Amino acid sequence: MNEVIQQLFERKSVRVFEEKEIEEEIVREILLSSSLAPTAGNQQLYTILRITDKDLLHQLSESCDHQPFIEQGKLVLIFCADCKKWYDTFKYSDCKPRKPGTGDLMLAVNDACIAAQNAVVAAHSYGIGSCYIGDIMENIETQRELLHLPEYVFPACMLVFGYPVLSQINRKKPERVDLKYLVHENTYPEWNENNLFEMFKKNCRSGDYNAWMQAFCKRKYNSDFSKEMTRSVNEYLKQYK
Amino acid sequence: MNEVIQQLFERKSVRVFEEKEIEEEIVREILLSSSLAPTAGNQQLYTILRITDKDLLHQLSESCDHQPFIEQGKLVLIFCADCKKWYDTFKYSDCKPRKPGTGDLMLAVNDACIAAQNAVVAAHSYGIGSCYIGDIMENIETQRELLHLPEYVFPACMLVFGYPVLSQINRKKPERVDLKYLVHENTYPEWNENNLFEMFKKNCRSGDYNAWMQAFCKRKYNSDFSKEMTRSVNEYLKQYK
Repeated sequence: MNEVIQQLFERKSVRVFEEKEIEEEIVREILLSSSLAPTAGNQQLYTILRITDKDLLHQLSESCDHQPFIEQGKLVLIFCADCKKWYDTFKYSDCKPRKPGTGDLMLAVNDACIAAQNAVVAAHSYGIGSCYIGDIMENIETQRELLHLPEYVFPACMLVFGYPVLSQINRKKPERVDLKYLVHENTYPEWNENNLFEMFKKNCRSGDYNAWMQAFCKRKYNSDFSKEMTRSVNEYLKQYK
Repeated sequence: MNEVIQQLFERKSVRVFEEKEIEEEIVREILLSSSLAPTAGNQQLYTILRITDKDLLHQLSESCDHQPFIEQGKLVLIFCADCKKWYDTFKYSDCKPRKPGTGDLMLAVNDACIAAQNAVVAAHSYGIGSCYIGDIMENIETQRELLHLPEYVFPACMLVFGYPVLSQINRKKPERVDLKYLVHENTYPEWNENNLFEMFKKNCRSGDYNAWMQAFCKRKYNSDFSKEMTRSVNEYLKQYK
């Protein structure tokens, strides 16, 4: 195992940060790492918003499912899937572009997340922790107003960065499921009650698997933030019809 | 700049591979790097299909916009945004889950692409090249049949890996736009004809910017594969309504 692989293995989410600022030269390397990530047809179908305004950070920490640690981040980046900049460019150059569709959106979400993950890897290489905030997809009306998001711009993910406090460094990384459940040869597998139980049972620390799964579902899936995410994404999708 | 950053900067797409196979131990490290990537709530909302069947590889190289190099790949992975495995699990544990929605899908696409990019970075650390194939999102009917994709499973991206031939190693990495156009402070920028031109002009190698942009739009955006991607994604989206 080489050093890069080791870093990919050990990286975990960090939500409590030291007061120490991130040096601007390192911020630049993180952003360049994103910009040099793979991108469809070299189009860079995303725009990165770097949030520095304190009031705005506070409002985002509310509008992204009330997570106060967001405004404690020393670097906060929003990766927007951007179908607007090329569409406008094509219009200005008289290319007669069709309107952006859901395929363009999905390709742009790909680009945005790929670029985001390069930022995570780059930051980690300097001992800087990060946490993804999927909740940026929620509350379309608020985020649009806060970030001045026009048509065809979708905030695909947010990242909060900072140097981890000791307790975060020492925190155990959550275990993943065994590769045999995650990777399948040639075709999608047939799941049944038994193999799904085998895959997930080690996540359950209490003895009662069903009770644990019900609590997990309630917290992560049947929860308000999760329903809000779908409501909000449905609103974003309306433009691409 | 450290070694990790340097690798992120230099990595570029590779589409022509040496005959040399990828050692199975390295494949395992690549897959583990994906599985240990950041993931929403430790849910790993994706399933990886490793395509080894020669006939299937051939069919995919056709159904993904006719790109013969796909079947030359020494490792081919499809990262499926998977809203099915948890939904089924929740049902088996009597959690009364709501049906998956577009928010769940987008979160799963995030997870899938983040995991995919870790595979790219891991492979590169061993000198193994890779190329994303967004075209896996096209032709829903064919891909569903080929890969046995059930409801709530969306092939978000495909990756083809192999050791690069010398000409690919020597190929210049395409330049990205300047960071000042990609990264904006606090709010989404106001684009106009002038700043869009400033951003993209260096991509144009001929003297005639508009003619170049029109050709680019025709090839990448008003093209058949691009329209097909939106048709296909619209079909996938119907399940999440």
